[in-house]
Order: sequence, then C-alpha cells, then structure tokens
Amino acid sequence: MTIATKRQYESLTEEQAIVYAKKLGLFSDELELECSEIGDGNLNYVFRIRDPKNGKGIIIKQALPYAKVVGESWPLTLKRAKIEASALKKHGEFAAGLVPEVYAIDEELAITVMEDLSRLTIAREGLICLESYPKLSTDIGEYLAQTLFHTSDFALHPFEKKKLVSEFSNPELCKITEDLIFTDPFFDYETNDFESSLRVDVEAIWSNELLKLEVAKLKKSFLTEAEALLHGDLHTGSIFASEMETKVIDPEFAFYGPIGFDVGLFLANLIFQTITREGESRVVIFEHIEKTWEVFSSKFSELWKKEAVESYKDTKGFETYVLDKIFQDAIGFAGCELIRRTIGLAHVKDLDRIVDEEQRILAKKQALQIGELFILNRKEISSIQSVIELLEELQK
Amino acid sequence: MTIATKRQYESLTEEQAIVYAKKLGLFSDELELECSEIGDGNLNYVFRIRDPKNGKGIIIKQALPYAKVVGESWPLTLKRAKIEASALKKHGEFAAGLVPEVYAIDEELAITVMEDLSRLTIAREGLICLESYPKLSTDIGEYLAQTLFHTSDFALHPFEKKKLVSEFSNPELCKITEDLIFTDPFFDYETNDFESSLRVDVEAIWSNELLKLEVAKLKKSFLTEAEALLHGDLHTGSIFASEMETKVIDPEFAFYGPIGFDVGLFLANLIFQTITREGESRVVIFEHIEKTWEVFSSKFSELWKKEAVESYKDTKGFETYVLDKIFQDAIGFAGCELIRRTIGLAHVKDLDRIVDEEQRILAKKQALQIGELFILNRKEISSIQSVIELLEELQK
Repeated sequence: MTIATKRQYESLTEEQAIVYAKKLGLFSDELELECSEIGDGNLNYVFRIRDPKNGKGIIIKQALPYAKVVGESWPLTLKRAKIEASALKKHGEFAAGLVPEVYAIDEELAITVMEDLSRLTIAREGLICLESYPKLSTDIGEYLAQTLFHTSDFALHPFEKKKLVSEFSNPELCKITEDLIFTDPFFDYETNDFESSLRVDVEAIWSNELLKLEVAKLKKSFLTEAEALLHGDLHTGSIFASEMETKVIDPEFAFYGPIGFDVGLFLANLIFQTITREGESRVVIFEHIEKTWEVFSSKFSELWKKEAVESYKDTKGFETYVLDKIFQDAIGFAGCELIRRTIGLAHVKDLDRIVDEEQRILAKKQALQIGELFILNRKEISSIQSVIELLEELQK
Repeated sequence: MTIATKRQYESLTEEQAIVYAKKLGLFSDELELECSEIGDGNLNYVFRIRDPKNGKGIIIKQALPYAKVVGESWPLTLKRAKIEASALKKHGEFAAGLVPEVYAIDEELAITVMEDLSRLTIAREGLICLESYPKLSTDIGEYLAQTLFHTSDFALHPFEKKKLVSEFSNPELCKITEDLIFTDPFFDYETNDFESSLRVDVEAIWSNELLKLEVAKLKKSFLTEAEALLHGDLHTGSIFASEMETKVIDPEFAFYGPIGFDVGLFLANLIFQTITREGESRVVIFEHIEKTWEVFSSKFSELWKKEAVESYKDTKGFETYVLDKIFQDAIGFAGCELIRRTIGLAHVKDLDRIVDEEQRILAKKQALQIGELFILNRKEISSIQSVIELLEELQK
C-alpha cells in the first residue's frame, strides 16, 4: 500500500487524477490513459482511470468537503475517506472478494485508490430492472457474518476491539443516521419529504406514541451499543453485483454499532422490491430475504463455535440469545429504514420511480405499514419465515 | 490548573514530593512541610503534604507502573492516572463538592495533585465501625444522577459524547473488571479465592448454566453499552465520608459503560453491611439502599425533564423505560459484585474480618445467595422496596 505524502486538500480534476495514478506507480508514465468522473457527485468525486489498450482500470475516489446535494452549505468531514478506506481494509481481512481491493490511501487529499468495479451494476439499479443476482443473498449473508462476527467482542481481544472502537469513531456520519433514520421522519421536521396524499398516514406516525417509544429504544441502541464494526449504510445502492459477483462498497458510515443495523438495512431494501414486484419475480426476493438471514445466522454460528474467544461461548443459550437479539434488532432497524426511505429526506428509486401516482402511493403506504409493524412487533416476529409470511399476508 | 513539563517517569520519594508541590506554587519555598505516604500501596503512591503550622495540606497521587499486590510482575498502564484525573474533573463539573478538587495533572509522571481529604474516613472502614453517615445515600444518589445523566446521550450533543467515549477508552482497567467481576468467579479459574467450606456453593455456581447465561448477558452489556461516563469502581472503599460530607475518589476505572454498573456496585457494597449488621443498625443500611435509588431516580428524572436534549424525551414511556433498564442492570451488576467479592480475587473487609469461621461462612453464603437471586431475577424485581423486602426475607 502506498501512502502519498501529505499536502493541502484540493479537489482533483480529471487530468490531475491521471497524473496522481501514474505517480502511485499504478500505470507507467508513457501510457495514454482515459479518465472520467462517474460519481453521482453528492458527496464524492469518483474518477475511473483506464488504459484503453488493455481495459485495465482503477478507481480514485475523493471525498468532497461538503454535501453537493444541498450546495456547499452542508460541510462534511473529510475524515470519512479515511474511515471508508480503513473499513474496506478491515472488512476485507474477513470477507476478501466481497469488498473492493484498496491500493492506496491519501488522508490529506481524502482519496482512496481502489479496484475498478465498473464491470458490475449497482444492485438497486439491477434489481429495479429485474436483473438476476443468484449470489446476492448468499454473498451478503457471508459478508455480514464474517465482518460483524470478526470485529465483535466474541472474536477479538478486548484491547484490539477497543482500539478499533476509537479508530472508527465517526460522529459526523453517525449524526446523519441519528437524524435521518431515527428522528426526523417521526416528527414534523423540515427535512421530511412526502407526497401530500401520504399526509394522513404520516401524521398518524407522528402521533403514534407506542411506535415512537419503540423507535426511541432503537435509536438508543444505535447510539450506545458498540457490538461490531458496521458498514453503517448497507442498502442495495452500496452493493455492486452481477450474476457471478457481489462487492460491498462505500462504508463511509462505518462505526461500532449494533449488529442488527447492517442486517436490517439490507433486508429493508430487499423488501422495497417485494412491494414493487409481482408473481415469480417477487418470490425471488422472498428467497433472497430468507437466504440472507439463513446464511448470516448459520455462518455466524459456525464462526462462534470455531473461533469465539468469549469464556461464555459454550454457556447454554448464550449464542441463541445473541442471534435472537440481532434478529429482533434487524427487524426493528428494517422498520425504521422502510419508513424513512418513504417519508424522510433520502428516498429510494424503487418506490419513487413508479410513475402512476395511485400505484406509487399504494406502494408507499405498504412500506409505511410494514415499517410500523416491524418496529412494533419485532419481539414477537420469531423467524425469517414469519417475516416472509407476514409480507405475503400484507401484500395480498 | 498547572500542567508540569514532561519528563521521564520515575516514582517520587517523600522529599521529592515536597519539592514537586513547591514547584507547582502550592506552597511557598521557605515553608517547612511534612510529607507522608499514606496509600495502601497496591496501585499508587499517595503523598500527603502539609504545612504543620496551619494544617493546610494537599495530596499528590502517583500511579505505579505495576500492581504491587502481586509484585512488579503485573504491569498496569500509567494512562490510568490521566483517566482518573480527567474523570474527577469531568464528574466535578456536574457534582461539585462530591469529588475532590484537582489542582494539577502531570501525565508523564502519572501524578494528580488534589484536595486533601484526610479529615474524612473511607466509608467502608467507617461503616464497618458502625459510624453514622446520614448524608451518604443522598450524596451518592445525587452524584450518580448528576454524573451519569450529564455524560449520557440524553444530555450531550452526539459529537461531544463520542469525543468523551474516545477520551475515556480504558481497555486495561476494563479488562480487570471483565475478568474479575464477570468471568473468573463463574469458572474454576486460578484467580479465585475462597474458604474450602464454600466449595460446594462455589461449584454449584460454576455448574449453574442459567446463572452463567445471565452473567454472560451482563458482561456483554458491560462490554458494549456506552451509556455514560462511569466511575467504574464505585464501592464503599472509593468513598470518603463524614457525618457532614461525602467525596467520591479513585475513578481510575472510568469509561463509557452501562449506567446501572455504578449504581449496582454501590448497592452491593451496602448490602454487605446488611449481612453483617443486626437490628437497628441494619435498618439504617436498608434506608441507605432505598434512599440511594430514590434520590438517584428522582434526580435523574428531574434532570431529564429540565435538560434532556433527546427528541424523544417527551415520548410517553421512554423515561420510564430508561430508568427501568438502569434498575434491572443495577440489580444484575450488584449480584455479580456480591459473588465476586466473596469468592473472587478481591474480597471485602466487611466479610473477611469476621473472625468466627462459622459466622463468616454463613455471611458469605448469604452474599452468594443474594447475588444469584439478583442475577436470575433482576427483571422480576420491580422496585427498590422489593429489593429490601427480599433482603429482609433472606436474612431472617
């Protein structure tokens, strides 16, 4: 790994990106390289640099010191580039092949140089187009088990775990989640964004004290429970996929939090697809939901038996207690994600792209209904099969 | 506050301690000062320096780089001096008058210069001698509420809270607690120390899978739940008291952990006194137990209503949920403390000083019985009054 020398932050141009890549020794000086900025441009520049002769490429991702979505007025820490690159490397230790390889980190310029994945598609886009990703849930289940088990107290010496907790302290990006997932959608706050035909449903959420009590508990868990090094934003837009491969990208929200958060966010984003699909193609998503949990929990359990360092690992009931807690948390966090993606600041294309208004509102009402039900009943929903039965029942 | 210049660590002699105090400008150069080392000498030197003419004194506490109790073979981080001094200052912001004033910190020499409290007695010693401390529980209840509420997410901006979590990362001292309170006493480990006549009871603990499952959950909470900046070792030996005053000292175990841990440790150490006392003097301790919780919970509640920054502060049931969790946790942690002080490495004088063996063993069996009961039934014990009823019932 090359760490470039420190200098003042400035954002790169496409030409500078090529010079930068050559300086790192990733291409020889005499090559004529192509460079294009391919990011969605909200928070980062993403330069794709390739040698047109052999197609070999790399990605230079540079964090912007502000969120472009609201202009330059929303400053964002550049430290997130360091967090993201370090999380990719840490998670890569345990889930090699399921995250992009990192070639270089440049803290001063907030740059990560990594594997070019442009042969793959963003899973959300692919799922919307009914692309088939037979390996998606097996790979994500494996990724979740490997990264979350191995960074937890069950696998690490407490000194190493606490060192990582400090290293991945990520207050600014956590605050975005605290506000946008756990707080704003449940109050009449300005950041919320929803169609006026949803107002009755939204106001019912704002005045549902039982629901808000459960969200308050989930938020407290997010704020206090340092169980494992999370990805922190594991929706289907953070996953590159093809029929053959799955790669989890963009862990800039990484921090030590409750394990169920990563699991729940991924499940919620699959659930949007169960809302918009019908027939056989919906069954495929139900199967992904089931397989995600089955692979995650059986792999986690296997790692526990083989590698756990906790003295109580063999105490009867402890492993089950831990997995049950993760499941309940995941269902609750999934519920929050379903609601906030429907009425909060950041929506999902899965629902927003539905052109027919009546159909779109119906889909969104379903998302809200599932979200509420998950949050309120997460302790009673006892298995991933009951989740699927419940979804089938609600969507009849 | 004076921060002395950095230099190589070396332990002070009494003469050097006097020179050091004068250099800090706490006494004028020409004074003839007295100095004596008054620590119990396990982990720290404690120099008391005073001007015999007016009795004015200060304390210079210096951490040793090892635990003397087992010779120089058990190295201990000197960073704990910094943690202790910083915790005294942070807690002092909210509970002024209930912790000693800090005059100077010297990181390199692992020294804290602070208020001389030798007019007071260590509460454990005083309680054993049936001294009367009418303010003890009111003051500790207030101390717990002020320090724990004000360092939690309920009172702090998340950036400030997460900064403190990192600042008070305390892996080495946490490990001592993880091992000696939550692990070793529940397994046949070498560190344990108990009379052979307790072996049957101890082996019953080691083979009690239900009990161990609950301890495993409590340990997980200690390892992961960063609720507030704890004292981390709040037994009656960490409290100086008189009829008029209470001062909490020695927070070298301070870190971000579950609020109930501080509450539970203090309650457990009062409970040892309910075991050894009889009649009216035992009733005094029951009153202290009740008042500690009553003052803590009502003050915490008052601070919540006045000062909480959490959006969900007024959501029906949330404050009750938080206080109920603290209570249940406290009962569980108290149970662990009762057991580990009876059969683990570090005992309490309250029990060990009982000369008559039969009586001593009886007292220790009671401590174990209460401990188990607390751990197993913490979710069913609904109020501090039921705790007292339960203690009265068991000790009939």
